[in-house]
Amino acid sequence: MLPLESEHITNIAYDTVILGFTGKELKILILEYQNSGQFALPGGFIRRNEDLYDAVKRGVRERTGLEKIHLEQFHTFGKKNRDSAYPFKKIAAGKGYTLTSDHWVLDRFITVGYYALINYNQVQPTPDKFSDSINWYDINKLPTLMIDHAEIVEKALESIRNDLGKKPIGENLLPEKFTMKELQKVYETILNKEFRRTTFQRKMLSMDILKRHEKLYTGAANKAPYLYSFDKEKVEKT
Amino acid sequence: MLPLESEHITNIAYDTVILGFTGKELKILILEYQNSGQFALPGGFIRRNEDLYDAVKRGVRERTGLEKIHLEQFHTFGKKNRDSAYPFKKIAAGKGYTLTSDHWVLDRFITVGYYALINYNQVQPTPDKFSDSINWYDINKLPTLMIDHAEIVEKALESIRNDLGKKPIGENLLPEKFTMKELQKVYETILNKEFRRTTFQRKMLSMDILKRHEKLYTGAANKAPYLYSFDKEKVEKT
Repeated sequence: MLPLESEHITNIAYDTVILGFTGKELKILILEYQNSGQFALPGGFIRRNEDLYDAVKRGVRERTGLEKIHLEQFHTFGKKNRDSAYPFKKIAAGKGYTLTSDHWVLDRFITVGYYALINYNQVQPTPDKFSDSINWYDINKLPTLMIDHAEIVEKALESIRNDLGKKPIGENLLPEKFTMKELQKVYETILNKEFRRTTFQRKMLSMDILKRHEKLYTGAANKAPYLYSFDKEKVEKT
Repeated sequence: MLPLESEHITNIAYDTVILGFTGKELKILILEYQNSGQFALPGGFIRRNEDLYDAVKRGVRERTGLEKIHLEQFHTFGKKNRDSAYPFKKIAAGKGYTLTSDHWVLDRFITVGYYALINYNQVQPTPDKFSDSINWYDINKLPTLMIDHAEIVEKALESIRNDLGKKPIGENLLPEKFTMKELQKVYETILNKEFRRTTFQRKMLSMDILKRHEKLYTGAANKAPYLYSFDKEKVEKT
């Protein structure tokens, strides 16, 4: 069933950029709608009786099967020529519905963008009933996305780059304990540039948000790297 | 005349936090609505045929008389209990209108927040026809603001503090040429903390976004401080 106007506020929606780190690459979750050829970020509408943030969390849970992921709002997209009517018609048609031209979902929409960083290996996204599939795509090899979703992805990455110095961006992308090399790989992938190992290590340690743990023994004991975790108390204060 | 539903998109509005620096204090522009006792940030609705950002620029021009000010989007506020119906009824009543309970401006609104930093001495804000007055208020001595406008102000200040390290926040608050002492005062006021003169100067110069000019002669020549301006080319690249 299509979302009812009486249950939602109009002209405003949200879209989410959900990023996962494979250990080598950053990937983004993309939905493909049934019988429509439309690829999209997971998004949705806001119910009349729910907070924007709660709508986003609910929508992500319903559309991707992911629970309890931390979402950061980064930008609201309000160009008048955001054309969602065409893809929404195609999506409805793919499900066997015909939308009358005055249907509320065909009106202009402003959308609020959220991003989430999750551990690629610990989650198993599942598509909702409107979608053929939900898949991880390399950020450099996305399919053609509907409306301005490619621009939304760009802006999300820009925001994450800006936040990298002041928020523990790596925290949700990495396992609880990680090596300095793994952390460096996250930064290099997000910033799309390489660092010298020594410079990177010095910079990270100077931020004073890491805890050092035991070494990661792999057999070649003399080369075993230390494991680190984010020091939650110190991170909270920054 | 009240804004018409047919000309606007519904459930979505914007509000602006316009900050000016007096040389000593940070002030915020606040409107007082006629015969209603309602104090508010300058805000408004979005026409069906205009971009969100254009709506904000138009609204600021119409409501405050200010032209060509640079606005940064910082956050979108979407709590379901943002109660704009009560103040909107009071504002309409103050102008002699009675709103029926199904009037579109009494519905739930999500609002997009923008901030602007302007040179307090170079502008002369003027109230629009809905407002008694438009006045600069010290950020620490605001009147009781309608809806969640106090929270919007807090969030704007938080965003400006975050942006201070990476954007030339001082640029629009100061005259074109300024002394290091004036720049320090801007930072101290925004961050609400004091810096040592030498530490502050070293940090600012290390950012490499300032141009040094002639000294500011005031009579006591041996103590004349240098004048600086932001180096627009270098700022663009950051």
